[in-house]
Amino acid sequence: MDTNRRDVLKMGSTAALGGMFLSQAAMAGQERQPIIVEPLTGKAGFRVANYLPKMGASSRLGLVTNDGLVVDIPAEAARQKLTLSFDPTSMISLAGSGNSGLLELAAIFKNRGANLQNVNQVILLSPIPKPQSNIYCVGWNYLDHFEEGKLHRADKGVTEYPKVPVFFSKGTQTMNGPFDTIPYDASNSTMIDWEAELAVVIGKKGTNISEENAMNYVFGYSAFNDTTARDIQQKRHSGQWFKGKSLDGHGPMGPWVVTAGGVNLDDVRVICRVNGVEKQNASYKQMYFKIPTIIAELSRGLTLLPGDIIATGTPSGVGNGRTPPEFLKPGDVMETQITGVGIIRNTIAPSAFTKDL
Amino acid sequence: MDTNRRDVLKMGSTAALGGMFLSQAAMAGQERQPIIVEPLTGKAGFRVANYLPKMGASSRLGLVTNDGLVVDIPAEAARQKLTLSFDPTSMISLAGSGNSGLLELAAIFKNRGANLQNVNQVILLSPIPKPQSNIYCVGWNYLDHFEEGKLHRADKGVTEYPKVPVFFSKGTQTMNGPFDTIPYDASNSTMIDWEAELAVVIGKKGTNISEENAMNYVFGYSAFNDTTARDIQQKRHSGQWFKGKSLDGHGPMGPWVVTAGGVNLDDVRVICRVNGVEKQNASYKQMYFKIPTIIAELSRGLTLLPGDIIATGTPSGVGNGRTPPEFLKPGDVMETQITGVGIIRNTIAPSAFTKDL
Repeated sequence: MDTNRRDVLKMGSTAALGGMFLSQAAMAGQERQPIIVEPLTGKAGFRVANYLPKMGASSRLGLVTNDGLVVDIPAEAARQKLTLSFDPTSMISLAGSGNSGLLELAAIFKNRGANLQNVNQVILLSPIPKPQSNIYCVGWNYLDHFEEGKLHRADKGVTEYPKVPVFFSKGTQTMNGPFDTIPYDASNSTMIDWEAELAVVIGKKGTNISEENAMNYVFGYSAFNDTTARDIQQKRHSGQWFKGKSLDGHGPMGPWVVTAGGVNLDDVRVICRVNGVEKQNASYKQMYFKIPTIIAELSRGLTLLPGDIIATGTPSGVGNGRTPPEFLKPGDVMETQITGVGIIRNTIAPSAFTKDL
Repeated sequence: MDTNRRDVLKMGSTAALGGMFLSQAAMAGQERQPIIVEPLTGKAGFRVANYLPKMGASSRLGLVTNDGLVVDIPAEAARQKLTLSFDPTSMISLAGSGNSGLLELAAIFKNRGANLQNVNQVILLSPIPKPQSNIYCVGWNYLDHFEEGKLHRADKGVTEYPKVPVFFSKGTQTMNGPFDTIPYDASNSTMIDWEAELAVVIGKKGTNISEENAMNYVFGYSAFNDTTARDIQQKRHSGQWFKGKSLDGHGPMGPWVVTAGGVNLDDVRVICRVNGVEKQNASYKQMYFKIPTIIAELSRGLTLLPGDIIATGTPSGVGNGRTPPEFLKPGDVMETQITGVGIIRNTIAPSAFTKDL
């Protein structure tokens, strides 16, 4: 099946009231905070969203302007009689289209004039609702997060800071929209924790990429929360993190991807707020293994593909590192901000998750 | 892009002489051992292969008969004027088609008469060349393998046998064909080890699946080798296994999928031979967490999808557990057999892997 059609089907179930996730549309009855469009910090970049113009429409990519307008990429390309080198309903396809895709975005942006909607009137989806492989993740990538975990984690064996990035993966089923709810099932875990992270989207296929060339492989950046079931992560599976990192919907991403030229990494702060209270706030400068090192080490003998997602690790301030530990409970609002990129806001499902059998 | 088209593109690069993998076709100059078709042990099942009738053709599914003939499913469906409920070029689509798909296979098989080729004349590909998520894997699932590892592994903290299956994932880029070569790069790892495993292919979407119902979620079985770079797995990434399990091409699978009814699990033996010498040989009966337990535990809060692959763990006899330890080197032939299912045979790339930049 066509990737995009699958995405739409997935969205369809996401949007269904009886489905596992409660969509933004389904929450329309609730007060919705306005979407904030932060100024870009880089010289030349675009905010590319994956969205539905309205419920029931098919998903498509759109450019989000500084003024909070969404430009419908396929509709504008048609109006401007522009032939695109990418599928305008797929971020993965755009990510892989290289410079031609970026030039086409520039033309669409420059000549925009119709097909505009306010970003608060559309339904924003995950930029990549159906990742083509698990999300690549980096553990312990801020020194203070490594230290805060020492007391609380099960794997007491690791006391020295790693010499290379610690990699693990987060299952594809964790992918969730920027404003969708996160399922909660107390019978499975009562230790759901936040982990605000800067996500990198790869733009070019590569293996054994050198640190020097690594930044040429970055398509863009997004906000990501590596939401984690601590009890499952640390103890249940003998120290392998995968399952506790891979519960359905425990990986919200968005609200869009900012293309690489639009982000000045030194200006990035990674922030998490729970019910409006700031829990994490660190600078990219505090990241221990920077993006070039992560890409170089990850791609050793492992081919990265356009559209692959790398979550670059979370700073200190997670719930499990607090005294006493704090965890998310139904109704809590988890806000993940990457300054200069965007803010996502996810509510822990207000009622317990029920079996879908 | 269409999944199958992507698969074909991937195959195209697989088959390319300048590419990373050396395909069966590219090895045609070498002596090729005949493909063995083992008798099925279950009452009613099919061997479903994913194959190219010849180089340059597009991939399709085929039924392999006891006599070693391959029935071209799309061609036979057309000849028999049978409308299929699945895409006959995608194992993932077939896996998700449920009983209608199986009934259609039965009709195609029964009325076959044309579109037949000898299995030794076709090019067998991985049954699922482009998995839709990482491969779900179980660690330490045979007691003697857990014990043999104690002396040699880095994570000395784990001394008691786990109470639930230990899950980790293996990246999608590990997927490899049943008779293709496995890349070797001594600058990345010199501790490449074998791990013969029974792979389960999921046939139905499900979350929080009960042990009682779990076997209804199995589409079929295949042979898999969870080929592992021990140095990277155990030490380099602070005990997280993911990266050492995820080198390109380090997950050969095949030679086909046997649908669930064709396998009597109690008759299954998991065998590995290196250069003809038997290294692993254990019965499914020795598996500690059986398939229903694996599916139930894995699907807790994590939705399994048709076409998902679960590698169920390897028995004792891996190279790293030997005294002195043994590892694979270029030119070695690793043979993975699941009795009643099939045998795959992969040569460690005869020359060092080179950068593709």
